[in-house]
Amino acid sequence: MWIDVAWTGQEVDEQRVKGHVAVVIDVLRATTMIATLLDAGARDVWPVTEVEEARQLASSLGKGIEKGTLLAGERGGLPPEGFDFGNSPREVSAEKVRDRSVVVTTTNGTLAINRSVAADAVVTAAFVNVGAVADWMLDRAPERLLVVCAGTVGRFSLDDALCAGALVDRLTDKFSNRAPVELSDSALAARSLYQQSADNLLAAISNCKHGKNLIRLGLGADLAVAANVDALHVVPILEPSSGGRYRLLAAS
Amino acid sequence: MWIDVAWTGQEVDEQRVKGHVAVVIDVLRATTMIATLLDAGARDVWPVTEVEEARQLASSLGKGIEKGTLLAGERGGLPPEGFDFGNSPREVSAEKVRDRSVVVTTTNGTLAINRSVAADAVVTAAFVNVGAVADWMLDRAPERLLVVCAGTVGRFSLDDALCAGALVDRLTDKFSNRAPVELSDSALAARSLYQQSADNLLAAISNCKHGKNLIRLGLGADLAVAANVDALHVVPILEPSSGGRYRLLAAS
Repeated sequence: MWIDVAWTGQEVDEQRVKGHVAVVIDVLRATTMIATLLDAGARDVWPVTEVEEARQLASSLGKGIEKGTLLAGERGGLPPEGFDFGNSPREVSAEKVRDRSVVVTTTNGTLAINRSVAADAVVTAAFVNVGAVADWMLDRAPERLLVVCAGTVGRFSLDDALCAGALVDRLTDKFSNRAPVELSDSALAARSLYQQSADNLLAAISNCKHGKNLIRLGLGADLAVAANVDALHVVPILEPSSGGRYRLLAAS
Repeated sequence: MWIDVAWTGQEVDEQRVKGHVAVVIDVLRATTMIATLLDAGARDVWPVTEVEEARQLASSLGKGIEKGTLLAGERGGLPPEGFDFGNSPREVSAEKVRDRSVVVTTTNGTLAINRSVAADAVVTAAFVNVGAVADWMLDRAPERLLVVCAGTVGRFSLDDALCAGALVDRLTDKFSNRAPVELSDSALAARSLYQQSADNLLAAISNCKHGKNLIRLGLGADLAVAANVDALHVVPILEPSSGGRYRLLAAS
């Protein structure tokens, strides 16, 4: 198995993902939120890039189903006007989201998902479900894997790189008995960064730019949730829907 | 002091380097070669992007000076036809290069230099002269520093990232008594990668993609030269010349 890591969603295009299984990571907080929503029983999660698009999609999805569709997401770390949730997994409960569709828009994570749709399959990972994603990958056994860090507005983001490294670390462990694993330079680097911080992930993500921003916004408690490795057992997988849209479902 | 690291020359443009001092790094092998040439007494080094452009410049420079201008560089790791040198520092001696101009073209390093020219100053670094560059920076004390890894054809290259990390490590040490040093996420990551491999740099760069390529080409001995930390005391600095061209000189 060949494993490569892209540091930003902007690095990724159809050519780079084609023939790969893609794992999209936005630890703070899109993919932590997506795992939390599906784990709490949400029917599906619709990632869209723009706020206005999110409002329109929620309204159109809402018409056809018994319970209304929920809107979640952030701009500058905070929920846009009229949204049911921000991007904080601490707001999510089974009571609020069970069997509901949730439309999510975030600054970096949804862009990274939308740039990866040409892959053979797209799943999302965060520290909270990295073990579940590694197990799913062991069953699927792809020949080529591209881990897509969302990054921050086109720049390297250490929190995402650390989580990519956690996934590479798990996969090289799990696959070592089955087939040779070959790592790109960025995959080697991600694993090395993770191994150096594995004993104190919360400190590491509190010290990076994105973590500091959230602390400044009074959302520091989200970091502890995001650093809770293997708390959830869900694997969000992208599925095409009508109208060129995509939704994330819990893989069975 | 603010320190940022770009993983590839392609990431860099006028907007990103403006107001920064830039340090360009292409460990395997452009900036190792440039330091070696200037340390061996070359008058100056002219970095150009294209092979044909290199031939033309060498020919035009050669006319006006007593001794002929030399041509050095590589494509696919090997010297283009008619070049005096490849890109191997082991070919360089004071006898061959003293007081001569050398035109250098390489796949990634010269592109990274040419994309950084809008910076307040541009110097080049490699493991061989990382300490000299850190000392020079201590005198210059810029407010904003951008370390530009050349990368490999637009992709992250671990050898360059390790050297960027060595420089960040030296600078945070040296500046810690003078002014607060703030690191971007990529600068934090580079330093962390370096610290994990500092005890065995040669193994680390032998295990990355570019190192493996050179070993395959029979140029593995260049890796040991490139990993020889602080072997040279020269700081190559970029200076504008006529016709929109730039040359590197040993900083005094």
